[in-house]
Amino acid sequence: MKIVCDGLDLSDAVLKVSKALGVKKANPVLEGIFLKAKGDELTLVATDTELTIEKTVRAEVMMEGETVVTGKYFSEFVKKLENEQVELSLTEENLLKIKYSDSESEMQCFPAEEFPKTDKKVDENFFVMKQSDFKRLVNMTIFSCSQDDSRPILKGVLFEIANARVTAVALDGFRLALARADVSGFSADMKAIIPSRTLGEIVRLLDNDESDIKITLNKNTLMVENGGTILLSRLLEGEFINYKQIIPSEFITNVRVNAKTLSASVERASVLARTDRISIVKFDIKENLLFVIAKSEVGNVNEPVPVNMEGKDVLIAFNSKYITEFLRICEDEFIAVHLNSPIAPCVIKPVSGDNYLYLVLPVRINA
Amino acid sequence: MKIVCDGLDLSDAVLKVSKALGVKKANPVLEGIFLKAKGDELTLVATDTELTIEKTVRAEVMMEGETVVTGKYFSEFVKKLENEQVELSLTEENLLKIKYSDSESEMQCFPAEEFPKTDKKVDENFFVMKQSDFKRLVNMTIFSCSQDDSRPILKGVLFEIANARVTAVALDGFRLALARADVSGFSADMKAIIPSRTLGEIVRLLDNDESDIKITLNKNTLMVENGGTILLSRLLEGEFINYKQIIPSEFITNVRVNAKTLSASVERASVLARTDRISIVKFDIKENLLFVIAKSEVGNVNEPVPVNMEGKDVLIAFNSKYITEFLRICEDEFIAVHLNSPIAPCVIKPVSGDNYLYLVLPVRINA
Repeated sequence: MKIVCDGLDLSDAVLKVSKALGVKKANPVLEGIFLKAKGDELTLVATDTELTIEKTVRAEVMMEGETVVTGKYFSEFVKKLENEQVELSLTEENLLKIKYSDSESEMQCFPAEEFPKTDKKVDENFFVMKQSDFKRLVNMTIFSCSQDDSRPILKGVLFEIANARVTAVALDGFRLALARADVSGFSADMKAIIPSRTLGEIVRLLDNDESDIKITLNKNTLMVENGGTILLSRLLEGEFINYKQIIPSEFITNVRVNAKTLSASVERASVLARTDRISIVKFDIKENLLFVIAKSEVGNVNEPVPVNMEGKDVLIAFNSKYITEFLRICEDEFIAVHLNSPIAPCVIKPVSGDNYLYLVLPVRINA
Repeated sequence: MKIVCDGLDLSDAVLKVSKALGVKKANPVLEGIFLKAKGDELTLVATDTELTIEKTVRAEVMMEGETVVTGKYFSEFVKKLENEQVELSLTEENLLKIKYSDSESEMQCFPAEEFPKTDKKVDENFFVMKQSDFKRLVNMTIFSCSQDDSRPILKGVLFEIANARVTAVALDGFRLALARADVSGFSADMKAIIPSRTLGEIVRLLDNDESDIKITLNKNTLMVENGGTILLSRLLEGEFINYKQIIPSEFITNVRVNAKTLSASVERASVLARTDRISIVKFDIKENLLFVIAKSEVGNVNEPVPVNMEGKDVLIAFNSKYITEFLRICEDEFIAVHLNSPIAPCVIKPVSGDNYLYLVLPVRINA
């Protein structure tokens, strides 16, 4: 293998694929970046076997070939090359010679054949949507994924495509976040559970514009391509929880509140509540006021937030983290908070429409 | 105590003094911020007994008084108050009531008398210099302070004022950094060893302009005031190492090199050298070239950097960290590198003038 390419192109490609580098030391070759020179291109691939990222750059290929360099050192080294032409060539001893200006360095490589092959054969199932909508779906659900390895399926977000809409759902046993958006094209109704890490990497891949993104899927693999970068990921396998069953449709207390005001108030309350093992805030809803109440050995807060309410008064307690995490990302000025009782789930929705839904379980307290 | 003040003023003052909050749990009251309402001012003080920061804000004082609030919770809470008037009042149960808009919170306090008194009586010893010069002195020396508790005196920077100049010196047993600047006023020749943490906080206190800063000192205390914030710090006591003895004045090999080029080259070399316990780079200086050489199990680098040299060829090895840390902050385009032998200290100076000096000990290697 022997190629010449632009240092900046190389550095950019290494940065992009590095996100998929394996972090566990189980298999050292997974800490490597696969390099393949063919035609007039250099292809770089990194994988941790779950997530694979591939990027191709233009190169002058003097000799085709393949090798695997240690990702960490190669990426740090390449970053420090100024914007110059870089020549990469592989010696018979499996050393990668890196030439730039008058200098030359060498890096130990792994044998190319040890690198796992990636299978890009995915079915023709796909859906297409605005990149901005995809980002919104991820942003409004990913924080509710479980962090817990005991139920791996909950470490992903369910994407359901039906009726030209996509519904994204994440839940962790304490709360459920759901968001909806239109798709501009799709091959058929479909479902997939996408790992939260993969979603984070797809979002990183996207542009800051209104262009579309196409997600291709089969039973256990997802593929996305944007700007010459290909991302492949395993899907989570198994049955997702039947989330529709969890969401109540009728409520006894319905409250309309300014999201920013409520958010600021709960943030303050959680400062003083945080000393306890879990930080509890109470909502005492009565007479068109929602009192945000917290009490701990540090101090106590009692803030009335004006609301429009219908139905019965209610006093309910939450883990403040579950409230603030949602309110921080909620973009609406006003939200509708729906309740049934101090021990029933609370549901937060837009005042109109069904673009999102957030359900959070209360904490039982002594009245 | 009962006062009304501006929420933003309060939040800014809390942020400033918080830098001096104690972090060790030895004495809980040191995790507190002392509040004192008197005249038409609210004074806030935090101290870890070594470093004390005090800030005064304008307030409408309805009742004078003092108390101590838990710094962490108070600062987080105050940050989350929107730009409104805040009323602080102390109850008989030593609770601080915080009123804002229609809401009210309470925070547990420490008795004011438990808070250590700060002594602002410092002698009339002082020096005055440009804030930008002070920042430069700190920036060019502080990284060479020892991190090691076994020789506490080396965790500070020596400031020597003599002949209307200040010389700042830090050393850790492996390298020595020295920087000089003019003072625009001073009471007498003097010396002080200022803890590196204090220097960091003084720099944070400074403005981004060319105005002067006055540092007042006595045998064991330093005081600086800027923009209504007063910083007091203990000085390190004891004799500093006689650093002048360490710095050689004659050299066998003298090299003039572009600092940025050398820096980039050593940065690259240290990527490949880093796998060893300490990361060694060699300088092989001959024929108007300085070869930057590194070798480890990961790979090897050999980069020729063009230099102007006088004197004997030399091959010398360094801990790459000690070279890169200095080159990163060096602002000159060209620097002079002076050497005697592979086992003698290397001295880096400006090509002309004596504004700074950096001395680094080599690592002994087998030729």
